Amino acid sequence: MKNRIYIVGMGPGEEDMMTAQAIRALEESDVIIGYPVYLSLLGERFSGKEFLSTPMRQETRRCQMCFEEAKKGKTVSMVCSGDAGIYGMASLLFELGKEEPETELVVIPGITAASSGAAVLGAPLNHDFCVISLSDLLTPWERIEKRLIAAAMGDFAMAIYNPSSHKRADYLQKACDILMNNGVEPERACGYVENIGREGTKAHTCTIRELRDCKVNMFTTVFIGNSQSEIVNGKLITKRGYQI
Amino acid sequence: MKNRIYIVGMGPGEEDMMTAQAIRALEESDVIIGYPVYLSLLGERFSGKEFLSTPMRQETRRCQMCFEEAKKGKTVSMVCSGDAGIYGMASLLFELGKEEPETELVVIPGITAASSGAAVLGAPLNHDFCVISLSDLLTPWERIEKRLIAAAMGDFAMAIYNPSSHKRADYLQKACDILMNNGVEPERACGYVENIGREGTKAHTCTIRELRDCKVNMFTTVFIGNSQSEIVNGKLITKRGYQI
Ligand SMILES: C[S@@+](CC[C@H](N)C(=O)[O-])C[C@H]1O[C@@H](n2cnc3c(N)ncnc32)[C@H](O)[C@@H]1O
Ligand SMILES: C[S@@+](CC[C@H](N)C(=O)[O-])C[C@H]1O[C@@H](n2cnc3c(N)ncnc32)[C@H](O)[C@@H]1O
Repeated sequence: MKNRIYIVGMGPGEEDMMTAQAIRALEESDVIIGYPVYLSLLGERFSGKEFLSTPMRQETRRCQMCFEEAKKGKTVSMVCSGDAGIYGMASLLFELGKEEPETELVVIPGITAASSGAAVLGAPLNHDFCVISLSDLLTPWERIEKRLIAAAMGDFAMAIYNPSSHKRADYLQKACDILMNNGVEPERACGYVENIGREGTKAHTCTIRELRDCKVNMFTTVFIGNSQSEIVNGKLITKRGYQI
Repeated sequence: MKNRIYIVGMGPGEEDMMTAQAIRALEESDVIIGYPVYLSLLGERFSGKEFLSTPMRQETRRCQMCFEEAKKGKTVSMVCSGDAGIYGMASLLFELGKEEPETELVVIPGITAASSGAAVLGAPLNHDFCVISLSDLLTPWERIEKRLIAAAMGDFAMAIYNPSSHKRADYLQKACDILMNNGVEPERACGYVENIGREGTKAHTCTIRELRDCKVNMFTTVFIGNSQSEIVNGKLITKRGYQI
């Protein structure tokens, strides 16, 4: 039998929003590896497991640890918030896995912040949409800018991940300006949700002109409507096109 | 107390891929309303519930039924496959809800086919991506075409929903041609998954040139890589950009 690494999407936070499949993978595992904050979200029921971690930014090291532990014959889970295949560790593990034919990689999907945040705001992504990260740690800013322009041109609704950090406090403002310079009208319906599925969930709807001056933190997902989106009774709604 | 309608994302199929929150909402409900196929996916544990349905295409009627049942004082769940806010009934219910102040709408997110299909294929969406439906029932084809062109220009990875139907047997071919005419090279890494989380799951990876001639059905989600995507040991991987 091959060694196995589960790459587990934990959803936004509360255990309630994990799938049974994800919980089963963790229960089956000897070691659970992840960024410390995610490990701390795991409840009592996993307290018997071995937990391993590395500091932020040491993602490659953390993934290598998965293979090292698996080679000892342990079943390993790498946990990520949301979905492990959306700005998570899945692709890096597959890349490293090229050289590790004796280890099987199994991805267990989770509820990504686009879905869980959308549920809080109403239905902002109920038509074609883009998911874009504003983090330029791994992606040159020119590529992010190009994608924002393309998303505006295609009149996509958008979910924006990593909208801000200490070093990138003005990135959301820059992104809103790029969108407005490329055809998104200042009254475009938008919203954001902070701490989805965690204590202190906070949701807000506004226009993109207002969003431009909002201070959001890194635990926030931002939603930009398409040209048909509306704020209805405080909810951000992107219509699918039914006649009513 | 207000009447309540839960708008529940069931995930791709098996109960194992629903969240505990979704199961709880269904258990709390007196009536479960949905497209017949989705109702039939619900297991034994819900057999005591009242099930209501309408034929396909009668989505507005089905949503009105939710409000009618809620007004009788019943707790109602509207079930959708995947996530109810992604090509699901959430926005239509909010639109109809404008006139229904006594009914509260609560969205329970689910695992959408982009996440569950990606997990089967590897990690095709592990960078910025677009979700596009090829169905022109509610969206003019020109808008779909415009979005495909924008997605190609932005070098997004893509998840394509509703890639085919009896009447639209050649739409995936048309979409691939549009992408290839707008800068996507014929060797671009792609894949598709049929019957995710259901019996008869079938996954396939190929180039977009090959994808163009693949026959897929309506229970299939198609994935197009970005310019950096690769097929590694049969898995479709879109890199996040880590140095390894
Ligand atoms: C590195 S990405 C990880 C995304 C994660 N894999 C997912 O699928 O949701 C981190 C970003 O995801 C978003 N995010 C993740 N969890 C969140 C939560 N509980 N509340 C709000 N935003 C969240 C934020 O935009 C955050 O900056
Ligand atoms: C009307 S949309 C519903 C999408 C759903 N709300 C979701 O979030 O996954 C129907 C399309 O979703 C995709 N889909 C939904 N469930 C699927 C499954 N179990 N396997 C493969 N594709 C699926 C297919 O592309 C299908 O044509």
